[in-house]
Amino acid sequence: MYMKQNKITESLTVVKEIQKNPGEQSQVILPREMLKHNYNELEQHYFIHDLQNLTSGFPENENIYILGHEVTEDFPRHNHDFFEMSYVCQGEILNVIDDVELYMNPGDMILLNQYALQEIRCINPKALLINICIKEELFSRTLKEFVMDNNPISEFLRHDNREKQKYMFFSTGYSREIPVFMNNMVEEYTQAGFHQTFSLEAWLLLLFDSLVKSGRYSYSGIDKNALKIIQYIQEHCIHESMERMASELGYNANYLTGYIKKHTGRNCREIMKEARLKEALRLLADTALSVYEVSEACGYASPSHFFRIFKETYQMSPKEYQRQIHKNTMQ
Amino acid sequence: MYMKQNKITESLTVVKEIQKNPGEQSQVILPREMLKHNYNELEQHYFIHDLQNLTSGFPENENIYILGHEVTEDFPRHNHDFFEMSYVCQGEILNVIDDVELYMNPGDMILLNQYALQEIRCINPKALLINICIKEELFSRTLKEFVMDNNPISEFLRHDNREKQKYMFFSTGYSREIPVFMNNMVEEYTQAGFHQTFSLEAWLLLLFDSLVKSGRYSYSGIDKNALKIIQYIQEHCIHESMERMASELGYNANYLTGYIKKHTGRNCREIMKEARLKEALRLLADTALSVYEVSEACGYASPSHFFRIFKETYQMSPKEYQRQIHKNTMQ
Repeated sequence: MYMKQNKITESLTVVKEIQKNPGEQSQVILPREMLKHNYNELEQHYFIHDLQNLTSGFPENENIYILGHEVTEDFPRHNHDFFEMSYVCQGEILNVIDDVELYMNPGDMILLNQYALQEIRCINPKALLINICIKEELFSRTLKEFVMDNNPISEFLRHDNREKQKYMFFSTGYSREIPVFMNNMVEEYTQAGFHQTFSLEAWLLLLFDSLVKSGRYSYSGIDKNALKIIQYIQEHCIHESMERMASELGYNANYLTGYIKKHTGRNCREIMKEARLKEALRLLADTALSVYEVSEACGYASPSHFFRIFKETYQMSPKEYQRQIHKNTMQ
Repeated sequence: MYMKQNKITESLTVVKEIQKNPGEQSQVILPREMLKHNYNELEQHYFIHDLQNLTSGFPENENIYILGHEVTEDFPRHNHDFFEMSYVCQGEILNVIDDVELYMNPGDMILLNQYALQEIRCINPKALLINICIKEELFSRTLKEFVMDNNPISEFLRHDNREKQKYMFFSTGYSREIPVFMNNMVEEYTQAGFHQTFSLEAWLLLLFDSLVKSGRYSYSGIDKNALKIIQYIQEHCIHESMERMASELGYNANYLTGYIKKHTGRNCREIMKEARLKEALRLLADTALSVYEVSEACGYASPSHFFRIFKETYQMSPKEYQRQIHKNTMQ
């Protein structure tokens, strides 16, 4: 009954529950679904005409303030007098920060300090953001020791780098843990009458600690060029080597790997692995191909290699997944 | 697909996943199962002959220390030079603290300070405890603000009450949230090389905050007499009124309610509600009785009342539960 945990999965119980159901047909409520629901529970939703309330809206005596933001139209340049952690709950957006473009997909996050001049462009009218506004006063409470720590987020929060980084970008769309933390924060916030709860602060600390441990952050973000390159890699990595793709794009392979790391905070190999798994999920669900054929179609060196990676990621074999999907489809 | 959250469920995603599967036949890994597994991952397991290591065993530079304790035989009287949160992972134990008896069931917790003289009696050789040892140094870190707060656990941790309470008992066997926090703490602890992690501290803060919010704590605990009374109530509450049970036991009903609250930290009504639901689950699973008949057999005023309480607790109707159980049995 119990499956041995492997190193890829992280330390949250719920993560495992969800990894057992990688497909859309899953009957488990995915955290991102719940997040969309909980988004609607937030009392404060911001639109463009609320801009003037944005900085003055912070409730007195509270250090964390969570609000929903529907990006149905462009949102003009502004800054905040607090730290802001912005999470893309649904849809895509284009951030422009100090004239740098930054594309964000569902699950991505950005942490801004007070000096960042932010502009949000609508590229999908269904986009939803959740903004966690954090006053510095919080740093003398539960986050105190964390802020004094030696890690990139702590250094950013100490913001003795006004002239350096004004934001950190986290390409976290792949994460199964982040939506859980976000969801629990929103639930805690919407349920508690008075919001300065220890639980809310503890979830925020778990979020920060998880981002630190992942080691995946960028001080740049995904601009138009990086977006094009990532999409090219995702589309071609199954059949083309890194060298081949790099040369097609006009780069040296090492340079390209560094470029991806700089812009996404992530390892190129990881992005390729995800693209392969995504294609494998699709083929297992939509075609009658055997596991062996899927393994080959997705460019795995051998079926046993495919089997191991699949099981590591989803805690079930490709065969089990296929069976589950087809069972659900027939119902 | 999404089910509206009700007030009884708490703010943790996983809680809801699990409540969807109230039966033992559930295919979801229950946190307590995982906890048992993770118990085995703990490097440090204590037996009676390790007693001398107990206080000296605290690793230097660490403020939280987690160890497993198999209660295969009586464990002699001792105290600790740290705070200890002890959690019953499996089986039952009898604690004797300053000569007061305290029965603990799976899921129950006890928080001891340095002055408590504790003795553990083996009443089930399969009993497993998980002990979270907490040094006071932690109170100047992430728990700082919590310890300064005005709540019963904070006041206990400030331990300006050496002559008063030496322990707090939490009858948390009913909770679906506590095992998740415990499990995540053990996982965080066993996975991290250096244990002084912010995540570990954050999970502990979530645990404390959840215990505070529940409002269910006792400075006494369940002694032999309280145990007898609780068992009597659980067995008879379906067919007998509180007044009737109290008089059978030789008490006034108000006194009995107060007595239960004092010893378990819990409301008598809640204990009765749970006993009824437990019997309802049993009847739905093991008999061919209709929902109407089960409602009657468990002493509910009406089937609609039964339906509402069942759905609130398990997020599914009695009918759905019955269907699910029988489907799983046939497989």
